[in-house]
Amino acid sequence: MNAPLSSSQLLPALALRDVPPAMLDALSARFGARCSFAAAVREQHGRDESSFIAPPPAAVVFAGSTQDVADAVRIADAHAVPVIAFGSGSSLEGHLLAVQGGIRVDVSRMNRVLRLDSEDLTVTVQPGISRKQLNEQIKDTGLFFPVDPGADASIGGMAATRASGTNAVRYGTMRENVLALEVVTAQGEAIRTGTRARKSAAGYDLTRLFVGSEGTLGVITEVTLRLYPLPEAVSAAVCSFPSIEAAVRTTIQTIQMGVPIARVELIDANTVRMVNAHSRTTLREEPMLLMEFHGSPASVKEQAETVQDIAAEFSGNAFEWASTPEERTRLWTARHNAYFAAIQSRPGCRAISTDTCVPISRLADCLLDSVTEADASGIPYFLVGHVGDGNFHFGYLIDPDSVEERSTAERLNHTLVERALRLEGTCTGEHGIGLHKMGFLVDEAGAGAVDMMRTLKRALDPKNIMNPGKIFAM
Amino acid sequence: MNAPLSSSQLLPALALRDVPPAMLDALSARFGARCSFAAAVREQHGRDESSFIAPPPAAVVFAGSTQDVADAVRIADAHAVPVIAFGSGSSLEGHLLAVQGGIRVDVSRMNRVLRLDSEDLTVTVQPGISRKQLNEQIKDTGLFFPVDPGADASIGGMAATRASGTNAVRYGTMRENVLALEVVTAQGEAIRTGTRARKSAAGYDLTRLFVGSEGTLGVITEVTLRLYPLPEAVSAAVCSFPSIEAAVRTTIQTIQMGVPIARVELIDANTVRMVNAHSRTTLREEPMLLMEFHGSPASVKEQAETVQDIAAEFSGNAFEWASTPEERTRLWTARHNAYFAAIQSRPGCRAISTDTCVPISRLADCLLDSVTEADASGIPYFLVGHVGDGNFHFGYLIDPDSVEERSTAERLNHTLVERALRLEGTCTGEHGIGLHKMGFLVDEAGAGAVDMMRTLKRALDPKNIMNPGKIFAM
Repeated sequence: MNAPLSSSQLLPALALRDVPPAMLDALSARFGARCSFAAAVREQHGRDESSFIAPPPAAVVFAGSTQDVADAVRIADAHAVPVIAFGSGSSLEGHLLAVQGGIRVDVSRMNRVLRLDSEDLTVTVQPGISRKQLNEQIKDTGLFFPVDPGADASIGGMAATRASGTNAVRYGTMRENVLALEVVTAQGEAIRTGTRARKSAAGYDLTRLFVGSEGTLGVITEVTLRLYPLPEAVSAAVCSFPSIEAAVRTTIQTIQMGVPIARVELIDANTVRMVNAHSRTTLREEPMLLMEFHGSPASVKEQAETVQDIAAEFSGNAFEWASTPEERTRLWTARHNAYFAAIQSRPGCRAISTDTCVPISRLADCLLDSVTEADASGIPYFLVGHVGDGNFHFGYLIDPDSVEERSTAERLNHTLVERALRLEGTCTGEHGIGLHKMGFLVDEAGAGAVDMMRTLKRALDPKNIMNPGKIFAM
Repeated sequence: MNAPLSSSQLLPALALRDVPPAMLDALSARFGARCSFAAAVREQHGRDESSFIAPPPAAVVFAGSTQDVADAVRIADAHAVPVIAFGSGSSLEGHLLAVQGGIRVDVSRMNRVLRLDSEDLTVTVQPGISRKQLNEQIKDTGLFFPVDPGADASIGGMAATRASGTNAVRYGTMRENVLALEVVTAQGEAIRTGTRARKSAAGYDLTRLFVGSEGTLGVITEVTLRLYPLPEAVSAAVCSFPSIEAAVRTTIQTIQMGVPIARVELIDANTVRMVNAHSRTTLREEPMLLMEFHGSPASVKEQAETVQDIAAEFSGNAFEWASTPEERTRLWTARHNAYFAAIQSRPGCRAISTDTCVPISRLADCLLDSVTEADASGIPYFLVGHVGDGNFHFGYLIDPDSVEERSTAERLNHTLVERALRLEGTCTGEHGIGLHKMGFLVDEAGAGAVDMMRTLKRALDPKNIMNPGKIFAM
């Protein structure tokens, strides 16, 4: 197994390319005040939510249209300078860092709903719109978009990293929910990758080639998404268990019985404690499943009863119900804020997040040994999981100034990934490879598959200008 | 709009490449009796279910393992000779024809279930197993694989054409249900494209690049699939309508209300007549929806009642129920045999099948004008549709010796595809591009997207040996 990159290894790996003055002039001429060279703007665009540090981009273009993106890419192409698209900056894996220099194309102002076809359950949006903005704008239609990573990420960024979240067990990830894209290629041409038809067998699946390509093949400028009818009834329930294993076994049996559960999230006792402190909830401080059921009133009741029976077999404590929208929102906000609750539990800390995903039958094996190791390390951590999908996150809460803690966290992650791969899983369920997991990708996919990815990259981006230095080394 | 290829145009487009004697010797040396040069074997492997005719391949290798496939491809690569994989031969679009000569690698003997992980709802199979064989072999586990194209196709072929069928409205297509592949590349290397994890954000989605690539990028040698719990209860119902439009409106409203209907198939009056004659059913000879509901007994009952109410609004006649497995099987067998029923209705005919798929709100518009045109043409036809997905098939039943009928059928298809594209749909929902729709692909995807497909092909298969001459011209 290759050693993962750590931030201390990152700086020597930097290979900044020149951004010639002629290119900066061309950007200014084309974009005027919408191209910024100000240090503060560049610094702000030089970071993401990862723990890596890299120099800021040479310029930030605030794009307002596909044409803007295409023109910025064409100028960069003419000078063989890197281009990194920026939506909301919520990447956890260093996707947004300009490790080879270059410019940033900020698409956050491209945040409109371009068309809503509620009869077809589709919507086409610009990439800068966030998932919450989207749901707010369509709420009167009786439809919703279910994919919900922890952050209020941009839809373009979510497509680029193949994001998912708590609803994926029922509704799928960005892989299943992006119908079509418009992308600007490395040559600055806009192409469409599909139609609004729900399915198609027309040629190579360019949509899914770009979904998860982390900005390395082109810039996403429009996204057509599948929407879903808001369920007639929703109920949420919390159930505590004597052990993580009991919670996991309950989840496995629920999935195997075909209960169409909409969400099933694991939170360990320790993290429940952090959440209670942060969100002023009074959740029982034991391993917990937080569940949600969608459907007709009768179906929701039946699903919940089935899961309640399963939980009882594994000594789950009495379900607590949250039936009103307010209670549900409070519960899920608490879950979504687990990350921030954990960060606040150790002032000044940074979280090193893991993202392994394994076949569900392997989940208990993968989790339990990793918990033992994390406990033994002495580093505080949180543990949450989209357990219906076999995906979970440890967040090791390290002192960013402690080389020792960082190295311990990296070692824990390393051991966890090794275990997940041995159990036929993946090093990343939803965060992407970015900078942090490039070594792990080779271990997971094998040299031949990574070589194929490189071949594809070289074919579509021969000058290696689209977010270079991510996913794999060229 | 480009003119579609017709079989009369096909022969001049043939560009047969030499298969040097040294290569045939190498195949014989490696495969012995498992490489056949016999005319009868080659002829049998030189056809598919399309109406095209091409010369047979120079040799047929009967592969028994991934290593066999890899060695055959390596030998072909050394001589720059085309390789076409063959599963069950059920392609409707000329995918399997050796239009540039070369050899066939028959994987039909690679038909084993390699491993079944019922706890994880996954199975890994060799590519030659058929969908019915697979379901037969796993039936004791309480699980099933839902994707069901009309033919009893091979799983490898279904992955290669991104197939779907009647269950896609609920369970998705091969796009959603292939978790991972093993493929032999154009250089004869075996790579894996994913793990058994339900989701992953690890690098480019090679799995979905190969799903739907129609054998043009490599040969699929293993397929890991998602399985589903057999529903606790199933009920099927038939409902007749005064018009196609009423049936379509019923479907649209069902989908929009979020009813998790498992199957909803449209059959027009004319086709019901053919089915009755062929399958000895007594279905009412009016436009008909054939539906199936999966879930718990209570949920199935509730779904069916909801749809019954919707159908009543659109003057649907009384539902007829098929609750016993025998009745259901008879009904669905009748549906699956619609193609053969139609063929038998005009002895000696061949069917030219269409495969457009449009956003569901456009379905009535797309269908009704096309029915009028088909009626006016005087050519007999059948019409069936996976209407929950917006996908439907006309089959024009032509006299294969009549140039005029063939040209009329092609004209009808041409007009239908133009209409579907105008309505934001696709020329192929599930059959693939093959030879027949290469012109349409350019109209649908645009020159830029097709150029990108070509670039990908050139990068992965620089000698253009993997099923050349399909999807797009190089």
